[in-house]
Amino acid sequence: MKLATLNNGKRDGRLVVVSRDLAWCADASHIAPTLQAALDDWETTEPALRSLSDELERESIPRERFHERDALSPLPRAFQWADGSAYVNHVELVRKARGAELPDSFWTDPLMYQGGSDKFLAPRQDIPLGDDSWGCDFEAEVAVITGEGPSGLSADEAAKEIRLVMLVNDVSFRGLIPGELAKGFGFFQSKPPSAFSPVAVTPDELGDAWDGRKVHLPLQSWLNGSKFGEPECAVDMTFDFAQLVAHAAKTRPLSAGSIIGSGTISNKLDDGPGKPVAEGGKGYSCIAEIRMIETIYDGAPKTPFMTPGDTVRIEMLDRDGKSIFGAIEQTVVRYQG
Amino acid sequence: MKLATLNNGKRDGRLVVVSRDLAWCADASHIAPTLQAALDDWETTEPALRSLSDELERESIPRERFHERDALSPLPRAFQWADGSAYVNHVELVRKARGAELPDSFWTDPLMYQGGSDKFLAPRQDIPLGDDSWGCDFEAEVAVITGEGPSGLSADEAAKEIRLVMLVNDVSFRGLIPGELAKGFGFFQSKPPSAFSPVAVTPDELGDAWDGRKVHLPLQSWLNGSKFGEPECAVDMTFDFAQLVAHAAKTRPLSAGSIIGSGTISNKLDDGPGKPVAEGGKGYSCIAEIRMIETIYDGAPKTPFMTPGDTVRIEMLDRDGKSIFGAIEQTVVRYQG
Repeated sequence: MKLATLNNGKRDGRLVVVSRDLAWCADASHIAPTLQAALDDWETTEPALRSLSDELERESIPRERFHERDALSPLPRAFQWADGSAYVNHVELVRKARGAELPDSFWTDPLMYQGGSDKFLAPRQDIPLGDDSWGCDFEAEVAVITGEGPSGLSADEAAKEIRLVMLVNDVSFRGLIPGELAKGFGFFQSKPPSAFSPVAVTPDELGDAWDGRKVHLPLQSWLNGSKFGEPECAVDMTFDFAQLVAHAAKTRPLSAGSIIGSGTISNKLDDGPGKPVAEGGKGYSCIAEIRMIETIYDGAPKTPFMTPGDTVRIEMLDRDGKSIFGAIEQTVVRYQG
Repeated sequence: MKLATLNNGKRDGRLVVVSRDLAWCADASHIAPTLQAALDDWETTEPALRSLSDELERESIPRERFHERDALSPLPRAFQWADGSAYVNHVELVRKARGAELPDSFWTDPLMYQGGSDKFLAPRQDIPLGDDSWGCDFEAEVAVITGEGPSGLSADEAAKEIRLVMLVNDVSFRGLIPGELAKGFGFFQSKPPSAFSPVAVTPDELGDAWDGRKVHLPLQSWLNGSKFGEPECAVDMTFDFAQLVAHAAKTRPLSAGSIIGSGTISNKLDDGPGKPVAEGGKGYSCIAEIRMIETIYDGAPKTPFMTPGDTVRIEMLDRDGKSIFGAIEQTVVRYQG
């Protein structure tokens, strides 16, 4: 089942069921007005939404064209957005670039930060940038939306609470990160609103590309129309989604509609940093990573961060080359407050 | 106007208007079913809620007894909970206790972390503690709930978006903080759900104790029935609420229903650390602060963190000795997952 939220002028939008090929949708607001409302009462709403989805596939109900550009993020605002950093390879490289050691605990205890969730960008919405020195970067990631569970639930229990899967552009202002991390309280101004894919899907839509805990497909990203990355999501993922969800709920209950992210997808190559796509490698899922590689090899970064006019595109194709979630496509624009 | 959210078995509860003396309430769900819904449409709902409040004071409408024990946190879940650390005095003392310098920027750039907001404790709900070594502490604070505004709004503009004021117990697991901060991504497992006061009030309810940016009253806290702190909220507050809200919205828009906290209230005494209430001082708003003072004077902390059976009470009285927000009263209990 594929779900999306259309813009109806309200903060939480209108829930629709989307056809597998992303061409059609059917209003679901008689089942639940919003995706959060559906997640709040999933035992009741899921079977009804699945019936509607089946009817849409059979073309036996009124349907309308689905346009990705009309979609908001599946949860236009959420009660929790917690982003992991599951590709420890990536963290190790970042540290290597600045000559720092990676603590051993990073391989056993997930890194995760509490993100702002009060207002997400739509998947085709511009990224407003107040100042180029903020260092605007994208981060291509996979995220899951959860059901609920008690504090301290196990990874196996957490796996059962994975309701939906989607893509994220976790927009980051790299120039603001060192100052904020030095203050010790984590990211805040350095993490402006993220954007999610036009469609969120139940894990069964991924077929055997979903093993219950990871997505076995590459995540593609493009910068200004050139392929920038296509790393495999299940490779080098030190912590799977079940572990990330359990980490988020270690000392507090897991609430319905929590969004848990994977962190920037990153693959090693021959136990070292990956190569750019143009050189036959898997590329990168954020600009910071290629800048790090450039620093390691050439002593200085050369790929600039995004400035007004730059575009990013993030999409995942199934093994038949069809888009699963629709595409995140955003342009950086100058923001004047 | 005073507002509260009663437990009706649903996640967001039921909105009521509460009488000034906290004795009575009137159902407001015909105006807005929940406090978030009221905040989402404040221009329309505020005048209607104020009329209802006036009618309640005149006893001209059906009313029911208001029991603080029946209230949920005013927003039982929120789209944003961002907690500042505005009493830089407190931060300086923490650092002094461990022999660290305070960077100059801490006096000009607010510290703020993104808190978990997906499920708050009710004001009389037990605090579940999985392990005593987590070091369970309370933090008595004031918080505001905002309207909305553009990214980069000024402090003056932010001040106009302060819709409601309430109290917070920002529960903290001190034992988990050093490890999390060392990882660089801020608090996560070390900040279990916070609890807010039974009632949130519009700033005008504070009379001349509200200057548009700060609350000029002491915040009282009790640990196991003994007065623990009564520092003045407007004293030593390096950043006022207008500045904190503007900080939260520097690189992203301010959304309706954002909760912005002051951080632990803390007063200096003769330019040094304050004294315990028992010694005639203003006391402290968290156990960590008295432990820090004990460390400075005696070389080691002696006041233990909370363990099952310990109780905390947080309340603010007006100049006539009447409770403004009702009391947060919580008992720590053993959690077995």
